[in-house]
Amino acid sequence: MDMLSIIEKKKLRNPLNEEEIDYFVSGAARGVLEDYQLAALLMAIRLNGMDRDETSRLTLAMTRSGTMADLSAIRGVTVDKHSTGGVGDTTTLVLAPLVAACGVPVAKMSGRGLGHTGGTLDKLESIAGFQVELTMEAFIQQVQRIGLAVIGQTGTLAPADKALYTLRDITSTVDSLPLIASSIMSKKLASGAQAIVLDVKTGSGAIMQTLEKSVELAQVMVHIGADAGRHMVALVTDMDEPLGSHVGNALEVKEAIDVLCGRVTGPLMTLSLALGAQMLLAAGAAQTAEEAENRLSEALYSGRGLEKFRQMIIAQQGDPRVCDDVTLLPQAPVSAIVPAPQTGYVQSMETTRLGNLARSLGAGRRKKTDVIDPSVGFVLHRRVGEQISRGEALATLYCKTEADAQAAKAELLAAILIGPQPAKPLKLIHALVTPDGATLL
Amino acid sequence: MDMLSIIEKKKLRNPLNEEEIDYFVSGAARGVLEDYQLAALLMAIRLNGMDRDETSRLTLAMTRSGTMADLSAIRGVTVDKHSTGGVGDTTTLVLAPLVAACGVPVAKMSGRGLGHTGGTLDKLESIAGFQVELTMEAFIQQVQRIGLAVIGQTGTLAPADKALYTLRDITSTVDSLPLIASSIMSKKLASGAQAIVLDVKTGSGAIMQTLEKSVELAQVMVHIGADAGRHMVALVTDMDEPLGSHVGNALEVKEAIDVLCGRVTGPLMTLSLALGAQMLLAAGAAQTAEEAENRLSEALYSGRGLEKFRQMIIAQQGDPRVCDDVTLLPQAPVSAIVPAPQTGYVQSMETTRLGNLARSLGAGRRKKTDVIDPSVGFVLHRRVGEQISRGEALATLYCKTEADAQAAKAELLAAILIGPQPAKPLKLIHALVTPDGATLL
Repeated sequence: MDMLSIIEKKKLRNPLNEEEIDYFVSGAARGVLEDYQLAALLMAIRLNGMDRDETSRLTLAMTRSGTMADLSAIRGVTVDKHSTGGVGDTTTLVLAPLVAACGVPVAKMSGRGLGHTGGTLDKLESIAGFQVELTMEAFIQQVQRIGLAVIGQTGTLAPADKALYTLRDITSTVDSLPLIASSIMSKKLASGAQAIVLDVKTGSGAIMQTLEKSVELAQVMVHIGADAGRHMVALVTDMDEPLGSHVGNALEVKEAIDVLCGRVTGPLMTLSLALGAQMLLAAGAAQTAEEAENRLSEALYSGRGLEKFRQMIIAQQGDPRVCDDVTLLPQAPVSAIVPAPQTGYVQSMETTRLGNLARSLGAGRRKKTDVIDPSVGFVLHRRVGEQISRGEALATLYCKTEADAQAAKAELLAAILIGPQPAKPLKLIHALVTPDGATLL
Repeated sequence: MDMLSIIEKKKLRNPLNEEEIDYFVSGAARGVLEDYQLAALLMAIRLNGMDRDETSRLTLAMTRSGTMADLSAIRGVTVDKHSTGGVGDTTTLVLAPLVAACGVPVAKMSGRGLGHTGGTLDKLESIAGFQVELTMEAFIQQVQRIGLAVIGQTGTLAPADKALYTLRDITSTVDSLPLIASSIMSKKLASGAQAIVLDVKTGSGAIMQTLEKSVELAQVMVHIGADAGRHMVALVTDMDEPLGSHVGNALEVKEAIDVLCGRVTGPLMTLSLALGAQMLLAAGAAQTAEEAENRLSEALYSGRGLEKFRQMIIAQQGDPRVCDDVTLLPQAPVSAIVPAPQTGYVQSMETTRLGNLARSLGAGRRKKTDVIDPSVGFVLHRRVGEQISRGEALATLYCKTEADAQAAKAELLAAILIGPQPAKPLKLIHALVTPDGATLL
């Protein structure tokens, strides 16, 4: 067994067996392999692909490369939810309290912002004092006590993924379906939840831009989880425009609180309820999606969801007063309205470009050591398909400086196409994927 | 301009422009790029290929990465010959003296044995005292004086090729047509000859096993050379069995002398004359291939070829007495006859396996620091298509020890298939390739 023969095999399009996959995955995790051989293998995988069995083997090897979270001390079926990453996509902050308020324990490990997409941990940290780094013991105790905790992944979870991802990022091998699926699922499997609900994004701001590719990614991940004995379901949902109207860390916390207060409806709420319903179903806490959504709506409109969110903030040492007064969240020094340059309908948005705009304002990182500014971002006042008149506010920018605002204004207008012809609103939920197959909705 | 965007472009099957190719080639030569990024790029090139223009650009960039030999001080058209590598393939030792004896200057830079194939330098060094490392000045002076010199490539010739080849060898990216073609041609262009005759091998002992692939490689290399303003021609020739009957360094020098003495004919002589004829044509020293072959034959049978070989040995400090007494070449302590295990016809040979057998006896290297034993190897007493009776000598082995001979016997028999049905002798010269196209012969 050596790297050269493994590279050769994949180069010639032959599937790698368990022993070969274990060899390079455990070697990558331990840092004992040559980067140039791993790089050649990753490019061969990117270009020649992996079949479903190989991808499952790869995922399990990556999962085994580190520790596994043991959530068995938590009563009830633990359910996790994972999004492949989007812009203005803060469903976790809405659905986790609602699901917990319905009695299903939510023990969630989240990530930081990556590329043009936001990260739950960064958003939560915009609440003054909020701690995302808990010990496993404290994490489990909190879930036992209040039914809800959202923390950062520990470094010992799937270390092979970290090693491989670092190399993928600098060898142009990020955009590989089996590598994406194994990266996500290895961490999810290691996180220990018995049921996993996936939100696979599709469109101009997603990893996969076409519905076909997105459904394929969902299917591969659902099969990996099912092979590992987890209850799996995925929704394939729109990312051809930001999900919520708010983009930026504190802005998205504000929008989540607005939804939990019942002040704001729209796609962020709709999708949070749909994903939450799948979580209740997976946990056996409801028999039908309709029943599940009704329970979640009831938790929302009764205020029990917001109350659960407040409990989590308190438990994780954040300032719970933000639940009642969102102006306590960090505020940017400069705000600027972006007026519509013409009358018409919003035709489309370049969503990745919008995500990168938020990042360039300071809401995300270019490199790991960058420090995020929680206050910056923007709020969109129109969605695709909506009408606007010249001079009306298309968006409001929240920036560090006037110069940032000026530059951002041009970039935002370049990313949003307004035209005279009427345009359809975007469909929100495209498909439901289970181990039995995909259903287009 | 950065490596990541270059990798990305090739990954997506887009051709690289001159600036991009220069960036990674000069970076590789200077050792300033990350190996893992070069490795990912090499695998992307291996799997997605390069078009003809890209391959020419790559070759020229590699050529420019080092010094160019200046042969302008040599009177007449300098002609080089290059083989893509074979087993028992020692045409250089036969044709270089013959061509020089016909008045065409041969200023040849050769390589060492690589993998299962032999190298001219290693063969020449089996002549006691022979020096292959000359300064460029001494090299050119020798060609001016006697019309012939064969030396090792200097390290400053196409250093990018050395850097890339080292990495290809350990990332399973050797078997790429554009990378093979650019590797060979960059060194040939840097070696400075005005005309280049290529011997592209095809079959079980060659880089390319099929005629189609071999013709394609020949075409790509001929075009690269023509693009660089060189007179180019290639023969595609058989490597489905060793070319000569002798395999091993001193053994091949012996066979070359046998041919130059007129004692031995057969495919080694036939191909040497055919390639030599192309060299005379390229130099304008003959009008037709027939006239050229006649001139070379005349040089051979008159003994002027052997005389030229002797002059070269003397000029490069070797012992010229080997020309008259081949037993002065290194002799292996053990020789052993391999009898045919059955009566029949030689059906086929696994030529790479035979080359590897010679290497395992000590005729080649597994790693650069291995020391070659010039005396070891074997002589085959039958060619494909020839008849043999059970117990007759199929081959004679020349080994360091009895144990080596025992092991080699089994391996040699495993590589040569004898069967009852009559088999055809192999065709020697398959195609002639010029910038105008390929002609199957």
